[in-house]
Amino acid sequence: MSYQKLTKTFHRLAQLEHAGAMLGWDQQVMMPAKGNEARGEALAELSVLSTEIIQQPALADAFAAAEADADNLEPWQQANLREMREQWKKANAIPADLVEAKALTTNECEYAWRSLRPANDWKSFEPKLKKVFDLCREEAQALHSALNDEKGYVNAYEALLDIYDPGTRLSRVDAVFAELKTELPALLPQVMEKQRADGLPAVQQAPVDKSHQIALAKDIMATLGFDFDAGRLDEAAHPFSGGVSTDSRITTRYSDTNVVEGLMGIIHETGHSRYETGLNPNWRGQPVGQSMGMGVHESQSLFFEMQMGRSAPFIDAIAPKVQQHLGNDPAFQAENLRKLYTQVQPGLIRVNADEVTYPMHVILRYEIERDVILGDAEVSDIPELWNQKMKDLLGLDTTGNYKDGPMQDVHWPAGAVGYFPSYTLGAMTAAQMHAAMVRAVPDAPERVARLDLKPIFAWLSDNVWLKGRSLNYDDLMIEATGETLNSRYFLEHIRSRYL
Amino acid sequence: MSYQKLTKTFHRLAQLEHAGAMLGWDQQVMMPAKGNEARGEALAELSVLSTEIIQQPALADAFAAAEADADNLEPWQQANLREMREQWKKANAIPADLVEAKALTTNECEYAWRSLRPANDWKSFEPKLKKVFDLCREEAQALHSALNDEKGYVNAYEALLDIYDPGTRLSRVDAVFAELKTELPALLPQVMEKQRADGLPAVQQAPVDKSHQIALAKDIMATLGFDFDAGRLDEAAHPFSGGVSTDSRITTRYSDTNVVEGLMGIIHETGHSRYETGLNPNWRGQPVGQSMGMGVHESQSLFFEMQMGRSAPFIDAIAPKVQQHLGNDPAFQAENLRKLYTQVQPGLIRVNADEVTYPMHVILRYEIERDVILGDAEVSDIPELWNQKMKDLLGLDTTGNYKDGPMQDVHWPAGAVGYFPSYTLGAMTAAQMHAAMVRAVPDAPERVARLDLKPIFAWLSDNVWLKGRSLNYDDLMIEATGETLNSRYFLEHIRSRYL
Repeated sequence: MSYQKLTKTFHRLAQLEHAGAMLGWDQQVMMPAKGNEARGEALAELSVLSTEIIQQPALADAFAAAEADADNLEPWQQANLREMREQWKKANAIPADLVEAKALTTNECEYAWRSLRPANDWKSFEPKLKKVFDLCREEAQALHSALNDEKGYVNAYEALLDIYDPGTRLSRVDAVFAELKTELPALLPQVMEKQRADGLPAVQQAPVDKSHQIALAKDIMATLGFDFDAGRLDEAAHPFSGGVSTDSRITTRYSDTNVVEGLMGIIHETGHSRYETGLNPNWRGQPVGQSMGMGVHESQSLFFEMQMGRSAPFIDAIAPKVQQHLGNDPAFQAENLRKLYTQVQPGLIRVNADEVTYPMHVILRYEIERDVILGDAEVSDIPELWNQKMKDLLGLDTTGNYKDGPMQDVHWPAGAVGYFPSYTLGAMTAAQMHAAMVRAVPDAPERVARLDLKPIFAWLSDNVWLKGRSLNYDDLMIEATGETLNSRYFLEHIRSRYL
Repeated sequence: MSYQKLTKTFHRLAQLEHAGAMLGWDQQVMMPAKGNEARGEALAELSVLSTEIIQQPALADAFAAAEADADNLEPWQQANLREMREQWKKANAIPADLVEAKALTTNECEYAWRSLRPANDWKSFEPKLKKVFDLCREEAQALHSALNDEKGYVNAYEALLDIYDPGTRLSRVDAVFAELKTELPALLPQVMEKQRADGLPAVQQAPVDKSHQIALAKDIMATLGFDFDAGRLDEAAHPFSGGVSTDSRITTRYSDTNVVEGLMGIIHETGHSRYETGLNPNWRGQPVGQSMGMGVHESQSLFFEMQMGRSAPFIDAIAPKVQQHLGNDPAFQAENLRKLYTQVQPGLIRVNADEVTYPMHVILRYEIERDVILGDAEVSDIPELWNQKMKDLLGLDTTGNYKDGPMQDVHWPAGAVGYFPSYTLGAMTAAQMHAAMVRAVPDAPERVARLDLKPIFAWLSDNVWLKGRSLNYDDLMIEATGETLNSRYFLEHIRSRYL
């Protein structure tokens, strides 16, 4: 019976998460400005309530009893028990007042960031960001001291990483990042030279009305299996994918003059959405039924966007839809779209980066946030560290340009420290999974060329979506791809697409 | 300190209400169909959580201690303590199994009603409605026996009324309803005869595109002081006013061919919204800072819609805006709009009724539900009682027409018994307040004619909005209007507008 007591408790937590997810979506998509303070309070209270529920002392006995009786559980229930225990341990590591302080502080900092970033006002931003990082340090130390005995973290930053990407070790991150840091800067000039020689793409000539872009977006989303009876597409200043598994809310922003990148953003968010909505419905509301960490989540969006979406067969296949909705601008011809969607160019902005330079943006942030958490750097050092690393990794100067430098991302003001590595872990996971999918579905490129994508989605569903958290990350990778994560497939993908 | 413990608990309840209000708004305005099941679960869990919080045994001691120490509280805190206690007593009066049974039974009955009403199937509906009324009887008796010692209810129905309209006594309802029942049916033929003699209004000739209606609606809402940085206007199948005090969400539905009534609906919802957003911000999240009962809430929407919105100066003042946005259809000329907005015609449907006949719809329902709750009638008697009263009050025959008779409203299948009187109490409260406002702002009609409405809103703010629940209903009326509720101002208003 104790297992049932636990499932009931986690079901309740899932309902509070449902509320939080929807209030968060609303906050970014619908809410008028003056609603923000009360919304922040409501979200903070929901998170305090969740903390109280998962910290109730009676759960310790329930876990002990459930574990003593674990032999009588089905395998998926055993996995659920393991995941419940993991979440319980992590949640109990952080004191309730720290949870509340972080919710309020990040809400304030993120809100301020929205106007301070366009004003390039680092001076006003810095003290607010410092408060956030101070709380993240406390959080990291609390997690480290509570879990280190069973986890054996190398440091407190690894404890934060374990929140966003359960089971990912810093040793693996450092190993693959080191390879990327060696290989990619060497490839970059070769790729750019080749692209110059092949001729650069034409850019869109005339603005395209938003309504046509929406029609195209919905057409492509439907092609990618998005169910509009179980989700929505809306606008947000900072696009994200939200909602719950039965009601997926993806967002985008539209530019009249650059419709090409917007479409790829939507393909990306559709990948996140298919994962969330493709989770095992029998496990809904239970930890085992949740998506894996952020890295695996990002792998699904990047599988859609980078592996499939920017592949030549896919671009050629959707080019007629692009022209049908947006008109016959020469930029929308298939050959030009292929060039546009694979153009490599170092730039200041992470979210605009191509897949060759993107890992450098991530590595830069990872090194900075790790050092701040570990006390090897302070928030006041960030602009200088940023400038130096930008110069070293991408040869770009960001001096004094805070808004396109350390103020460009919402993650830090939102308190999501330890999150950035997942983008690049996701890119490598996507490449490794895509290679495995092609081995399993050998005619995949021809099918993509016909937009007959069902077997590809079926592979993802069987190997990732329906698995939820029933396996740990390493086992998920081994079952799906035959090996644990490594950088080989990503680097092969980059070489084969760009050289 | 116990007072602080209580305020913290009620602050937490307010945050759960915030979540529930926004999830409910989203469910009706944004949510795709397949999200409904999970949304229902989330909303149910929020309400179970709230019940657990307000029923926690430790609150009894906290109330005792806070009351012993009440002399050290500010007057508004004393009022807050009184309101907290009231809500706590009511929430604890009803056993948890009755709350659950009512939730399940009304859910089943309301769901069945959606298809049984269009099918005019009273036979299948009756047993389900009987179950609902049986539980409402139990609820009334539970409230009555728990609270009667301090409330001195005349019967169990009065305990239900006290849920929706705290402090309203049945003796007052009976007194004013008796006057309306005598006066209005006598006025009705005179009004209709006069309107026939004056010539009936022209109806809209051509459809008007929704975008123009939205532009007009927003223009009028802004004129009425709606702050679009603290609220939104959206579409819903069944318009309502929702959200929270810092973020008001009003909804409407648009008809291309009858834009006139839609606009008045928006003015009505704007009245509700100004009340909610005008509540005392220093008391936010506490019971003393909430709006009064349903009757006072309705009085604010009817002050906007009926007292001001359908007055000749207001209609004349907005007619140019109507024509600017919607075009020069003869129906949109000021004189015709005045006729359209004050047309009187007895009909079967409450929600379509004009302000002269509306009270008859309410009195009919009140008398029936009261008698069923008190055991003086049974659910099986309802159709015959309905027919008889419809004939007596409005001279209409509903024999066999259940769908436009006792099956037309969602209130009974939803278990909202004791709610109907608030519509007419609200209409009378609005008339009495409007008369008091005109005494305080003697040039109000001229100001309305210039759409210079600030002094009117200031009067409402000072006398109603900022008061929250710091006064009981009778004292609120005495401070605002010099006397307790009576029907004189409403009847004077009807005579002066319609005869």
